[in-house]
Amino acid sequence: MAKNSVSLSVIRRLPRYHRFLKELLATGTVRISSKDLARKMRLSASQIRQDLNCFGGFGQQGYGYNVEALYQEISHILGLDQQRTAILLGAGNLGKAISQHMDFSSRGFTLVGVFDNNPALIGQQVGELTILDSKEIDVFCKAHGPSVAILCIPKDAAIEVADKLIGLGIRGFWNFSHYDLLLDHQGIVVENVHLGDSLSTLCCRLNRLEED
Amino acid sequence: MAKNSVSLSVIRRLPRYHRFLKELLATGTVRISSKDLARKMRLSASQIRQDLNCFGGFGQQGYGYNVEALYQEISHILGLDQQRTAILLGAGNLGKAISQHMDFSSRGFTLVGVFDNNPALIGQQVGELTILDSKEIDVFCKAHGPSVAILCIPKDAAIEVADKLIGLGIRGFWNFSHYDLLLDHQGIVVENVHLGDSLSTLCCRLNRLEED
Repeated sequence: MAKNSVSLSVIRRLPRYHRFLKELLATGTVRISSKDLARKMRLSASQIRQDLNCFGGFGQQGYGYNVEALYQEISHILGLDQQRTAILLGAGNLGKAISQHMDFSSRGFTLVGVFDNNPALIGQQVGELTILDSKEIDVFCKAHGPSVAILCIPKDAAIEVADKLIGLGIRGFWNFSHYDLLLDHQGIVVENVHLGDSLSTLCCRLNRLEED
Repeated sequence: MAKNSVSLSVIRRLPRYHRFLKELLATGTVRISSKDLARKMRLSASQIRQDLNCFGGFGQQGYGYNVEALYQEISHILGLDQQRTAILLGAGNLGKAISQHMDFSSRGFTLVGVFDNNPALIGQQVGELTILDSKEIDVFCKAHGPSVAILCIPKDAAIEVADKLIGLGIRGFWNFSHYDLLLDHQGIVVENVHLGDSLSTLCCRLNRLEED
């Protein structure tokens, strides 16, 4: 099966499997049936079997899944054993929170540079990094070759800077700019994060519950 | 059709429709065909027709969608015209960023209280709010009756506090605690936000692209 034939919706569910397996490992669980895993994750057992079969299927009839083996395999599929380098653009409240709150290394990333164009922020420390002037991005990328950019900047700035960053070797965008960055470049991956969408969904679900 | 028979995956797509329609409105677009909207949103036209039909269908054969009418209707379905009150627990980096970065009011919420148990944070200002001692939550909830809690606290604290908050009248949780809060209470809605899952997905997609 061609690697990219696995649907994006299956890939999006993998980190969740990974989290639940990590918790099972922490409680000393050695093996688990698809039925039990399904109950824990609020999925159907057939969904779980279907998802994991996309990658060759790890379960054994009558045994279930070996938790440690499945955890390691999903870690590998997710590429968490790699250490890609990432830069973050926009060191406002959100950028600072992302850079300090996220455990990048356990997710296959090292944050190597934080940039802003606000003179009041340039030179400030964010964790172990010093906020650099956005004007230095070109030189920095040529020297360090980061492959991922985290965009915590406004929409217009994100649109403006995306093509330039691709020219500098960026291949992945983690985009918080309140805007669906849709790049028509081959070989570029974008994950748009819309916190507002999640909050609106909560609002909608509460309304529907109350109206029912 | 019973209101809750609309699937959660359709509801989750509504905020994205809302964002795209808002942009179309801003550019003065009066009407749009499902085909053109599909191209903009990178969905299929049939997906769009299917999604919007869940709510009665707003399009007209040969005309497409009236942008303003569809935008208003989706705003209403999302309940963005309401103003629910929300409290935020955990005023660390992430909590501060969420409370200052989010435009709550355009999403149907008013943030009325921010709480932490760290004496160094209590009394600090976050936007227009003063961080209160977590011990005051009971009294605060009884006085102000917030319906939503935003959890920017660690997993163990989230598990511990959730039931108590339900007892205090909280009906919706926006949960950033690195943990799938799965509450078995009728009439309670939880939106778990896992920023790490999104970053892991980006990592996985980059790997698969490179390996292909």
